[in-house]
Amino acid sequence: MGRCSDAKVRLLQVAFDLIWQQSYGSVSVDDICDRAEVRKGSFYHFFPSKSDLATAAYEEHWQRCRPHYDAAFSPQIPPLERLHKFCDLIYEIQVSKFTEHGRVLGCPFGTLAAELSTQDEKIRQKAMEMFSRYCRYLESTLRDAHSEGLIEQQDFAERSQAIVCYVLGVMLQARVRNEPDVLRAIEPNILNLIGATQFSPR
Amino acid sequence: MGRCSDAKVRLLQVAFDLIWQQSYGSVSVDDICDRAEVRKGSFYHFFPSKSDLATAAYEEHWQRCRPHYDAAFSPQIPPLERLHKFCDLIYEIQVSKFTEHGRVLGCPFGTLAAELSTQDEKIRQKAMEMFSRYCRYLESTLRDAHSEGLIEQQDFAERSQAIVCYVLGVMLQARVRNEPDVLRAIEPNILNLIGATQFSPR
Repeated sequence: MGRCSDAKVRLLQVAFDLIWQQSYGSVSVDDICDRAEVRKGSFYHFFPSKSDLATAAYEEHWQRCRPHYDAAFSPQIPPLERLHKFCDLIYEIQVSKFTEHGRVLGCPFGTLAAELSTQDEKIRQKAMEMFSRYCRYLESTLRDAHSEGLIEQQDFAERSQAIVCYVLGVMLQARVRNEPDVLRAIEPNILNLIGATQFSPR
Repeated sequence: MGRCSDAKVRLLQVAFDLIWQQSYGSVSVDDICDRAEVRKGSFYHFFPSKSDLATAAYEEHWQRCRPHYDAAFSPQIPPLERLHKFCDLIYEIQVSKFTEHGRVLGCPFGTLAAELSTQDEKIRQKAMEMFSRYCRYLESTLRDAHSEGLIEQQDFAERSQAIVCYVLGVMLQARVRNEPDVLRAIEPNILNLIGATQFSPR
């Protein structure tokens, strides 16, 4: 990988980390360039604006996380165990950030979307895309759970939206309270939302 | 009310409105002073910092809303109907802002907390206080619902937290999707979270 590409990768990583830890408004292009050790001219060579960098950085983060979500939501795994693995994955990611920074950071997409969606159309669209990706995993899982007789027939799209909303809210609470254990409530409450009985991992 | 007090009231109102519509980071003290027609010297006479103004403005907003929440959660009203009135109140407030600005703004406290809670301890504390105020209404309602045989015995504090998380998440989704109708899902999903059957208003 050439020098230019290294610089681009560093900008993406630093932008994602700083914005997630702090906020979009409190992190300047100068802050990002300083931390990434990239000159401002190079920044604008790669990205027309801070908003374009943020959108690319958040997409890049999703692409890095996706194999873990694909594994958790594998159709090879019994449906309610997929939900269990999803909750574990969320908890592990948050605890690893908490150990590193002393702060629960919550959902990177939810936090950015809360701050910017009335002001930045590109970021609003990216957030909607993210939420619908999570819904796709969940819908397929609920459909399989129903076909295996584990939950009743229900509007799986609507119910997946409800789960995404609930998880976003818990992530926000965990960020505000700075307590990773808040996230332990996710699994039982997802099961309440879909009317499944408590799942015991095999 | 003297001129100084008018200026303070205008600063509180303008700060709340601008930050809710946009974000904390994108609104400067100059923006607030300009819109409120207050000189910057007067601003610092009333508030040591932008963060102090925001904290006071959000508390002031809560005090204005509180009579409506007190009415919705009155112990004179049957418990599940209180939840129905709570959902209606949320919907009405959001639709009135949508009509005014063409934007669903979501929860003012959740949005501010998402942006600032890793950076501003005063605002983080204010957000936690707000969330616990909502929990207090909900806990008392769930306890009454149980005593009237409408829901099963459960951890009412934990379940109230789950409702607050879910509502925060739906409000965030509604802000991102800019669709007030997203909020229509709140009532049935609260009932799912507490295991109550669908409530038909009397």
